[in-house]
Amino acid sequence: MPVLAISCGDPCGIGTEVVLGALATLRPRRFAAVVIGDRALIPARIARAQPRALPPLRPGELVAVEASELGRDDRRPGRPGLPAGRAQLAAIDAALELVLAGGADAIVTAPVSKEAISRAAPSIGFRGHTEYLAKRSGAGPIAMMFHGPRLNVALATTHLPLAAVPHALTTARIVEVGRLLNRAMRSLFGVRRPRIGVCALNPHAGEGGLLGGEEIELVAPAVDELGAVGRFVGPLPADAAFRQAATGRIDAVVALYHDQATVPVKLLDFGRSVNLTLGLPFLRTSVDHGVAYDIAGKNRADPTSMRAAIRLAAKISSERRDFAGM
Amino acid sequence: MPVLAISCGDPCGIGTEVVLGALATLRPRRFAAVVIGDRALIPARIARAQPRALPPLRPGELVAVEASELGRDDRRPGRPGLPAGRAQLAAIDAALELVLAGGADAIVTAPVSKEAISRAAPSIGFRGHTEYLAKRSGAGPIAMMFHGPRLNVALATTHLPLAAVPHALTTARIVEVGRLLNRAMRSLFGVRRPRIGVCALNPHAGEGGLLGGEEIELVAPAVDELGAVGRFVGPLPADAAFRQAATGRIDAVVALYHDQATVPVKLLDFGRSVNLTLGLPFLRTSVDHGVAYDIAGKNRADPTSMRAAIRLAAKISSERRDFAGM
Repeated sequence: MPVLAISCGDPCGIGTEVVLGALATLRPRRFAAVVIGDRALIPARIARAQPRALPPLRPGELVAVEASELGRDDRRPGRPGLPAGRAQLAAIDAALELVLAGGADAIVTAPVSKEAISRAAPSIGFRGHTEYLAKRSGAGPIAMMFHGPRLNVALATTHLPLAAVPHALTTARIVEVGRLLNRAMRSLFGVRRPRIGVCALNPHAGEGGLLGGEEIELVAPAVDELGAVGRFVGPLPADAAFRQAATGRIDAVVALYHDQATVPVKLLDFGRSVNLTLGLPFLRTSVDHGVAYDIAGKNRADPTSMRAAIRLAAKISSERRDFAGM
Repeated sequence: MPVLAISCGDPCGIGTEVVLGALATLRPRRFAAVVIGDRALIPARIARAQPRALPPLRPGELVAVEASELGRDDRRPGRPGLPAGRAQLAAIDAALELVLAGGADAIVTAPVSKEAISRAAPSIGFRGHTEYLAKRSGAGPIAMMFHGPRLNVALATTHLPLAAVPHALTTARIVEVGRLLNRAMRSLFGVRRPRIGVCALNPHAGEGGLLGGEEIELVAPAVDELGAVGRFVGPLPADAAFRQAATGRIDAVVALYHDQATVPVKLLDFGRSVNLTLGLPFLRTSVDHGVAYDIAGKNRADPTSMRAAIRLAAKISSERRDFAGM
């Protein structure tokens, strides 16, 4: 039975709400959960535990790990100060510690505030949730993936201005992401020989160089190289790639930039897509939304995405698929 | 009753096939059509006409205008030589002549080969079907639009390498396209006060400048300016914009680059989306596919897109909406 470490993210956002909301609707559970967050935000009815002395958990059991103990002023919705910044970092660290020590099988994360963490702990150079997990766990190359009912997409670049994307792309990076996605499709999702389409950067896949050279210079060589490890096709015009994925002609897509992936994911898998990090030494899923300060503390947050993230982590963990190196 | 001038495009592609295929399934028709193409490709049972001496046409009537008379070698599928290049230009010219002289209410175009036309007539500097129509008709600013059952999208830039898009975008151009789209939604599609979303260029709409400055520098000022002429919102992250359009919260979208528009259009309106040119002094619709040399001459081409293009041209023309300046 899998044990999930669920970090509640920013105590001033909707994190704890969606975690508790999701867990409330997931009974009967075939997993146990360790909810990691602020003392005051987690109801007293949930038993407390120490991460280093976690008791044996039964299916359906829920324990809480207190990563912080914020005063009322420090956990006001929408206003993370230095203590709240430190608190969300502490929650990530506790989840990491748990999974790296073998006390949990996977991490599920609620959203954090990059700004709040950076202000609270400038010396660690916090660039993002995913990058921090990778660095702290000594991971190699990583990639962001969306898994939903209709689309599986991994991204070669993520949070970059569009103008920086052409310069950031390399054949080596596309190959890296293609390999991670191929492996994830096989070991996490049980597709024996996944057919993976690699997107082009330019309209009409560059139209033989008339509309850009990246297809010929970067993408086609990557697809060639990936031919040695799996069934890759491309460079495909992005519109054709997602159409083929939506109709089942291919199983997954390598997207080259953020919106190339998120536009189709939001259209076809809205609220049902889970964000996975490939390349970590453990399974990690997360929600597809942010801290949502505008509705934090009002009990209006929709836990659908968190429920999907928890369910997927539980499902993959219980099938004991090999996610090491995913 | 509207008269449509339908140019068959490249005689070595699937143009004539899809035009005749579409017209065959559109009875009973509430319009008349002038099919403009190569003599040998249009069946002899269709009566011939002279564009300058077009007889009065009845609903459902079909006449042919011979724009070329190619020999067998010059109309081989997939192999447009100089004569075929000249022939497709002649078909466009005949359609233009007809509509500008008032003999037709709208132009519907099958795809041409930019390369074949450029080779055959290098002196005219043929940059594309749409640009040629604009230049020949003395149009002002134009924009490409997709109209389908679920999405209405106009594009601020079209056939550019992705790396060139950020440099090509200007506030003035976004305003121009927003105005054209607003007017089209009102006068062509009868939406009295269309709500139009303007896409951002960068992920998360630039996240306040962290992920790119174009939203603040270019897009937001354009949306402000457009507020004087209609109900515009933005800059919206592209994934949010298309989600809002798909769920009916907004009526139309201004996309900033080709794939930003074509990925959602192909996913939601596949085969049912019609390409319109906004800003011409007449209505022009066209198909969403190319010359398709791989299947040309085999009678395997799918006329669905051409049928949609003809139907839309007929519908708008028969409702006598004001498309001058669209």
